[in-house]
Amino acid sequence: MLIKPGPLLSKIDSPADLKKLDQAQLVQICDELRQFIIDNVSVYGGHFGASLGVVEMTVAIHYVFNTPIDQLVWDVGHQAYGHKILTGRRDIFHTNRMYNGISGFPKRKESEYDTFGVGHSSTSISGALGMAIANQYKNDNRQHIAVIGDGAMTGGLAFEGMNHAGSTNANLLIILNDNCMSIDPNVGALKDYLTDVTTSHTYNKVKDDVWKILSKFSKFGKSAQDIISKVEHSLKALLLKQSNLFESLNLRYFGPVDGHDVHHLTHVLNDLKDIPGPKILHCVTVKGKGYKPAEEGNATTWHAPGKFDKVTGEVFKKVQDKPTPPKYQEVFGHTLVELAEKNDKIMGVTPAMPSGSSMNIMMKAMPDRAFDVGIAEQHAVTFSAGLATQGLVPFCNIYSTFMQRAYDQVIHDVCIQDLPVNFCLDRAGFAGADGPTHHGAYDIAYMRCIPNMIVAAPMNEAELRNMMYTAQLPREGQAFTIRYPRGEGVMPEWRTAMEKIAIGTGRKISDGKDLAILTLGHMGNYAVEAKEMLAEQGLVPAHYDMRFVKPLDEELLHDIFRNFKKVVTVEDGCVMGGFGSAILEFMAQNNYSAQIKILGIPDRIVEHGTQLELHAECGFDPLGIANTVRQMLGVKVTSSYASN
Amino acid sequence: MLIKPGPLLSKIDSPADLKKLDQAQLVQICDELRQFIIDNVSVYGGHFGASLGVVEMTVAIHYVFNTPIDQLVWDVGHQAYGHKILTGRRDIFHTNRMYNGISGFPKRKESEYDTFGVGHSSTSISGALGMAIANQYKNDNRQHIAVIGDGAMTGGLAFEGMNHAGSTNANLLIILNDNCMSIDPNVGALKDYLTDVTTSHTYNKVKDDVWKILSKFSKFGKSAQDIISKVEHSLKALLLKQSNLFESLNLRYFGPVDGHDVHHLTHVLNDLKDIPGPKILHCVTVKGKGYKPAEEGNATTWHAPGKFDKVTGEVFKKVQDKPTPPKYQEVFGHTLVELAEKNDKIMGVTPAMPSGSSMNIMMKAMPDRAFDVGIAEQHAVTFSAGLATQGLVPFCNIYSTFMQRAYDQVIHDVCIQDLPVNFCLDRAGFAGADGPTHHGAYDIAYMRCIPNMIVAAPMNEAELRNMMYTAQLPREGQAFTIRYPRGEGVMPEWRTAMEKIAIGTGRKISDGKDLAILTLGHMGNYAVEAKEMLAEQGLVPAHYDMRFVKPLDEELLHDIFRNFKKVVTVEDGCVMGGFGSAILEFMAQNNYSAQIKILGIPDRIVEHGTQLELHAECGFDPLGIANTVRQMLGVKVTSSYASN
Repeated sequence: MLIKPGPLLSKIDSPADLKKLDQAQLVQICDELRQFIIDNVSVYGGHFGASLGVVEMTVAIHYVFNTPIDQLVWDVGHQAYGHKILTGRRDIFHTNRMYNGISGFPKRKESEYDTFGVGHSSTSISGALGMAIANQYKNDNRQHIAVIGDGAMTGGLAFEGMNHAGSTNANLLIILNDNCMSIDPNVGALKDYLTDVTTSHTYNKVKDDVWKILSKFSKFGKSAQDIISKVEHSLKALLLKQSNLFESLNLRYFGPVDGHDVHHLTHVLNDLKDIPGPKILHCVTVKGKGYKPAEEGNATTWHAPGKFDKVTGEVFKKVQDKPTPPKYQEVFGHTLVELAEKNDKIMGVTPAMPSGSSMNIMMKAMPDRAFDVGIAEQHAVTFSAGLATQGLVPFCNIYSTFMQRAYDQVIHDVCIQDLPVNFCLDRAGFAGADGPTHHGAYDIAYMRCIPNMIVAAPMNEAELRNMMYTAQLPREGQAFTIRYPRGEGVMPEWRTAMEKIAIGTGRKISDGKDLAILTLGHMGNYAVEAKEMLAEQGLVPAHYDMRFVKPLDEELLHDIFRNFKKVVTVEDGCVMGGFGSAILEFMAQNNYSAQIKILGIPDRIVEHGTQLELHAECGFDPLGIANTVRQMLGVKVTSSYASN
Repeated sequence: MLIKPGPLLSKIDSPADLKKLDQAQLVQICDELRQFIIDNVSVYGGHFGASLGVVEMTVAIHYVFNTPIDQLVWDVGHQAYGHKILTGRRDIFHTNRMYNGISGFPKRKESEYDTFGVGHSSTSISGALGMAIANQYKNDNRQHIAVIGDGAMTGGLAFEGMNHAGSTNANLLIILNDNCMSIDPNVGALKDYLTDVTTSHTYNKVKDDVWKILSKFSKFGKSAQDIISKVEHSLKALLLKQSNLFESLNLRYFGPVDGHDVHHLTHVLNDLKDIPGPKILHCVTVKGKGYKPAEEGNATTWHAPGKFDKVTGEVFKKVQDKPTPPKYQEVFGHTLVELAEKNDKIMGVTPAMPSGSSMNIMMKAMPDRAFDVGIAEQHAVTFSAGLATQGLVPFCNIYSTFMQRAYDQVIHDVCIQDLPVNFCLDRAGFAGADGPTHHGAYDIAYMRCIPNMIVAAPMNEAELRNMMYTAQLPREGQAFTIRYPRGEGVMPEWRTAMEKIAIGTGRKISDGKDLAILTLGHMGNYAVEAKEMLAEQGLVPAHYDMRFVKPLDEELLHDIFRNFKKVVTVEDGCVMGGFGSAILEFMAQNNYSAQIKILGIPDRIVEHGTQLELHAECGFDPLGIANTVRQMLGVKVTSSYASN
């Protein structure tokens, strides 16, 4: 079902077409653009609230500025649907986030209008500043615009970018899209500050009060008026130049303005074009604007609701015949509370992903023991280290891809100090439709090289629970990383009794001969499927769930390498430096030789798609594993299972 | 030569002794503490200016607070010498930064007064907040103090910490030690802001002006006075609650105060003890305070001057008989300018290390093309990505250990976008006396697992120049990392003609038999020394300088593994996931079997010492390499070279 654009929108193939519209037509194009997004996302899924909130801003920017000569960077990127539709991707927009379709985020390879790939938060100011400084150096007179949400402003990188921008005269306009939300409601002092500014409780109110009071002095005649004028001058200097977080950083501040008034926005942007230097425009918007269920409902739900009935606002749920396994994140969330009820040392920490990580379950049950620290991964880790110094047991839950942003803190603040912090990395492996910016591809490699670090991955819900149980028991030092994938596990009945796992032990899943399959984490289930396929040909490889990348189960490995000369390793992480590499290191240290094939994420950027599509593409879906075993055993490769 | 402390200081074995002093004696103890630091550092070397600048603050904090029950975190840590001396380490202070001696930074294992290990910047607020929240939860009534420099405030982590702190009621005092310097002079808008506040050019001046003008209204009688009172009230609310960066983040702001007035400081700190919630005290200090040559001389020189004549202030230089090789950083600095003179696309970026990286050479020669962006590694990388999108050729120079802080930016902003940014990682391998927080141990492992990344290491100055020459030539995409160690190379005559190296090619250093040594980077020179030792026994291993970890020179490796069944790899990086692992992966992919021994940094935290001491400890100094070869060849191991 191809979504029909409205009459005006159907003629907009690029911003040049948009510029042909009369100012008076802008409201209509905004309406059509909004409707097109609603129509598409309700049918095909995707991010929703953020893009609806910036429809007017998107139209105004492309109407006023000369994109792509003028360069526009969308922070985080999931707010860029309108931008994509207006810049030549209207007719392929229904392929958004699908395998081989367009990306859900701006992407340089996709369009010259996508000047900077964005997926993680808070990068736009630094990226756009680099562009602005480059063009200043080249005497190339372009405008540079970064659109950044208030949630993204809490990321330290945004602050670093502003601090640098404020010391330059770069031609940079930062548009602060202030909707008081990232995915979950924003937290932190900055949010309160912005609310203050916006609602004028302090800034504008005091300003007005002073102005009003001063005006009363007029009755005292000329001499008083002179004084008033001087006071006004000083006050203005003070209020405009000083009493503002952004002005403190030497960014000229404008606003707040209504981000849904497209006429006013075009006028303001036109004015700002002529003001040189770094500047910030504060726009107040409503996430989900123009779609009542999203405006009035739960903003977290409407961030990326999945498919829904656009008339009733009912979000479709998958219909299930039988009980299905829970998501790993849900097992994490419930298990953490279960453990915390018995161990009062346990604390929870999430950087702005309470619902995505299911930390919200503990935040609700034990509000004084679970913390959403905002988009601030670095802080989340160092804060957890601080908790651990006081004998508490932090579980810091960060998506694998976002943990990249706290890498130094893991090394410097946790592992060098040998502090027993627990890290739960959600979305490890392929993230699916979010694509390469969100794949958790590197965590095994970048975590296992750090001393004082335990790295484990559960094959199923029961293992996750046992690992969490083990991680909260007292231990001398060492950080403990548990990584698990996005999506569902395999155990509908997942509330298993928990037991301690000896750290650094794997387990044998099944006996076999000729070849051993060594899996890490959820990939063990793929190996089980692969074994079923192989059994049809009479091939019976042994299968071990290694559970720990670090420390490795050396006893088990000695046993394996004494008995097998052919080994396949499977991991949903990068093959360079990952789990398979750890096995190779063990072999080298112990002088084992064997034919070994390492399956995992190859050394290239893998695009978006469903997890299974991507696993198949990379050759470690069940069929891929089976075929690798067949090749190593010299048996004909089949593709009978290629239906997936 | 053991340094004698003054009469008061000689009796201070812990803060309890300090508390026995009269308030009137505090000036004297400050003088003695300062003198003891000067006496020690002039003889033994170490960090200097920072600790001199906080002598009064250190004394005041330990005098007023109940350490270690009250918890004190020193940001960056090189300002903590006075703290160490007052907390039981006076008599071993001369072992500071020496092998097996005390650490130059606070370190949890060393003392209960060192509550949080610090070496990298900007961590103190997050760490101390974690402690404060933990003790709040435990109903443990303690004070928590983070002392952070103005330079460290530009790091995004500090901002993230403040943003979280401001939304809590944690008992946290942040002391902003404002000396307008980190190591090099601070940059960025925040610095200007702090200067503004301090010198009252805007904040205090305007405040005073308005006050003065308003006072003139008194002549208008009672009714005017009422109005004035209202205006004053509003203004106060505005000035105190709003017109301050920190108050914007809901941190109560106090100051600025003179950080060298120990009496005033004790009074202020006493008052602040009773004020609940997160708060910030702004102290203005002078780096190098109390030692004239440091106060008046170049602050960068006096950050860590090495040994010096404390009377004349003359910094001792090593006396050399013959021309010595330059430091790698100097080769980088001069070569970059040499290349930039011919290639106008080259730009330089450093996060607050212009002198440490020698980027200051380009900053001086081409001020519009080289940028110090402040302590902001994340921004440095994303900013460089922005430059690269505009066709420029950025050389972003970051110490290996600090690059950990920009890991996500390397992946997300550079490599996923396949942007040709050049990274030069100084201080790769062991950092020496700075110890584990500063060792560049992990870069090979964490960089090589990223797609679209080239990783190389030069064996000498000529190779560094050739790699830099190669990196600035046009290429399609791919980031290019060049890592090299702290300290000197091997070529006194280093200004060699530059030539392109084919990316991913190694070179044979010498033919040999029975065994091949594969080295990466500067370690190749150790292998040359090892070969000399081995030659005495008639052992002649082959030697290859692989140059690139990624891509590997597969042709050369095929040749090696066809001809050798014993291989030793040597790298000054972690063995887990590093260069040796890459070789193992090649072997596995190509079904080679060989006995292989991987030398490098082991999987534990290695403490401080000279680089050679640490290389020896880890078994990859020249003797360690030679002995490994002997063992593998079944020859008796000697320790004749143990003199180093």
